[in-house]
Amino acid sequence: MNNEYGGRRRLISAGLETRELDAMLVTHPASVRYLTGYAGSNGALLVLPDDATFFTDPRYAIQSRREITCRTQICRGPIVTAVATLAAARRVRRLGFEPAHISFDGYDRLRAKLPLNASLEPVAGWLEAHRMLKSHAEIAAIRRSVKTNSRTFELVVRRVRAGMREQDLAAEIDYQMRRLGAEKPSFETIVAMGERSALPHAHPGDTALANGQLVLIDMGAFQDGYASDMTRMLFLGRPTARMKSLYGAVLEAQLAAIDAVRPGVTGGQVDRQARRVLRAHKLDRAFVHSTGHGLGLEIHELPRIGRKDATPLAAGMAITIEPGAYLEGFGGVRIEDTVVVTASGCEVLTPTSKELRVL
Amino acid sequence: MNNEYGGRRRLISAGLETRELDAMLVTHPASVRYLTGYAGSNGALLVLPDDATFFTDPRYAIQSRREITCRTQICRGPIVTAVATLAAARRVRRLGFEPAHISFDGYDRLRAKLPLNASLEPVAGWLEAHRMLKSHAEIAAIRRSVKTNSRTFELVVRRVRAGMREQDLAAEIDYQMRRLGAEKPSFETIVAMGERSALPHAHPGDTALANGQLVLIDMGAFQDGYASDMTRMLFLGRPTARMKSLYGAVLEAQLAAIDAVRPGVTGGQVDRQARRVLRAHKLDRAFVHSTGHGLGLEIHELPRIGRKDATPLAAGMAITIEPGAYLEGFGGVRIEDTVVVTASGCEVLTPTSKELRVL
Repeated sequence: MNNEYGGRRRLISAGLETRELDAMLVTHPASVRYLTGYAGSNGALLVLPDDATFFTDPRYAIQSRREITCRTQICRGPIVTAVATLAAARRVRRLGFEPAHISFDGYDRLRAKLPLNASLEPVAGWLEAHRMLKSHAEIAAIRRSVKTNSRTFELVVRRVRAGMREQDLAAEIDYQMRRLGAEKPSFETIVAMGERSALPHAHPGDTALANGQLVLIDMGAFQDGYASDMTRMLFLGRPTARMKSLYGAVLEAQLAAIDAVRPGVTGGQVDRQARRVLRAHKLDRAFVHSTGHGLGLEIHELPRIGRKDATPLAAGMAITIEPGAYLEGFGGVRIEDTVVVTASGCEVLTPTSKELRVL
Repeated sequence: MNNEYGGRRRLISAGLETRELDAMLVTHPASVRYLTGYAGSNGALLVLPDDATFFTDPRYAIQSRREITCRTQICRGPIVTAVATLAAARRVRRLGFEPAHISFDGYDRLRAKLPLNASLEPVAGWLEAHRMLKSHAEIAAIRRSVKTNSRTFELVVRRVRAGMREQDLAAEIDYQMRRLGAEKPSFETIVAMGERSALPHAHPGDTALANGQLVLIDMGAFQDGYASDMTRMLFLGRPTARMKSLYGAVLEAQLAAIDAVRPGVTGGQVDRQARRVLRAHKLDRAFVHSTGHGLGLEIHELPRIGRKDATPLAAGMAITIEPGAYLEGFGGVRIEDTVVVTASGCEVLTPTSKELRVL
């Protein structure tokens, strides 16, 4: 993907003028990675009309020399000081910055070092809007991540036994995922057994798997920097009629939402399809979160797929579709795939079967 | 530790007046946890002279009800808006905030919602200074974390074989650590083989262990929220005289630094002892980082143990002592323990032997 980075930086350079900016300072780590490939922790990028300079500290000197194709400056002091010095030398008058991704301290020090005639302009969501539309290489990376995630699931499901604790299963998932090629999980793996499956964000704990219990597994990988995300349900023993009907309703909602995904449709419209189905099953009040979210270099990014989201979907967006229904004292069901918007509709990347897995 | 949180909050309440503050907004997650026990991701604490209010969003409503002993407010909108409303109701004129731990956006929204007669005052390092001095319960937690970390090391070392890749060993360490009771590693586990041990921050990669090679393992656990940190060296085969003398020099430096740790001595003085020994072995220029750092709810916190650090050590501080020497093209050695400053000197918590482990 090395050539992609230069192209992306040139797009930002080209957008400066219409935003009345002389330069843009990128500090959000995922956006710095998007524009440079740099995956370390302390870095920033100053995009100018004709070029860009990457800043980091001496700990990452070797790593950045290997990873970065644009001009790189290794700073012994604070990075913002070096940014201000370069901005002054290049006569930057209006400098854009990411207000959600710089600390008050960082802003304050940058402000203090800039010439008096220079202004700092908050620019929210610009990089995020670019990152929302994935290239072929990015879709390929997400596809690899999804594949590793699903292979891990299959491997681990075979080892599930009564008596296993949530945290044992979660540790096993994280371990096998890395052996299969992931850098790490894309979020804290969720394994929730029995009634605990009704907590949408349960932390894996000491609960042990017993007969007649649901298991909710929500897992994702980061591979080559890109995220995947999947939720599947297991059941130990013979599911009751109520369990099967809950599962069936959520699956119907998930399929209806996927069916609605195509260019031009908004996140809100997709969300409404899932809610419509769950309402018909009298489960709409048990669906306490939104239908999905974008993913890529971050596990949660734009577009959002919730009630009020007006962003029209477009080919190249990668999103999750994950409706759920949570009944306190009984259990919860969520079914989630990673999906890519295509020119004519969408492709579900997740290859894992959506039958309720009975063990 | 439930009672400790109230005591800590009262200390901050009591310190408001001398800082000429009517309230202090705590946003750094580790400091919020220190004052409340809350371990979720989106929370803030407003400390007032007589009480404190914790703010979070609805996703963490159940978790915060279980974990928090002070008044809790669940916010549907931005947390800073709720903070500003409460601050106005309580007639706060001077509101302290943590400038390194709030985004420009967060600051800006808070500023906009506060009454015009209220001012925002940056207060840096206050909570960090409190957190630097550990209670008995905190030392006990660090001790448990250290023990789990060392048990993990022993378990994994027995499995090391020629042909194992760095990343296999790192994945195994992270897995076993969780099985033994850790929540997660306290930082990305470092396993560096052969010449790669000369990179102080190596990411585990595809390099496979061969005979005649050094292996540097730097690992730590988070357990009950508290960090441990340890570096040990393995050697596969028969170490050469040069290898043994490099190892011996670093060990001598580490022991000299530990010997210097006691109340009243500064971080700089401890650092100097390690450097003095390495200079005698003509290795001072190969020691490219500082001698250690504080640890607790974060893997890196105050005090720093480096060349210029003037903070006098005090009983109850938890620090690492970790000199190293890195020779490009040959390899690097680092030896690191977790140490607690006591009234009369210090206690090395790490039980793992510091003999060069020859496999």
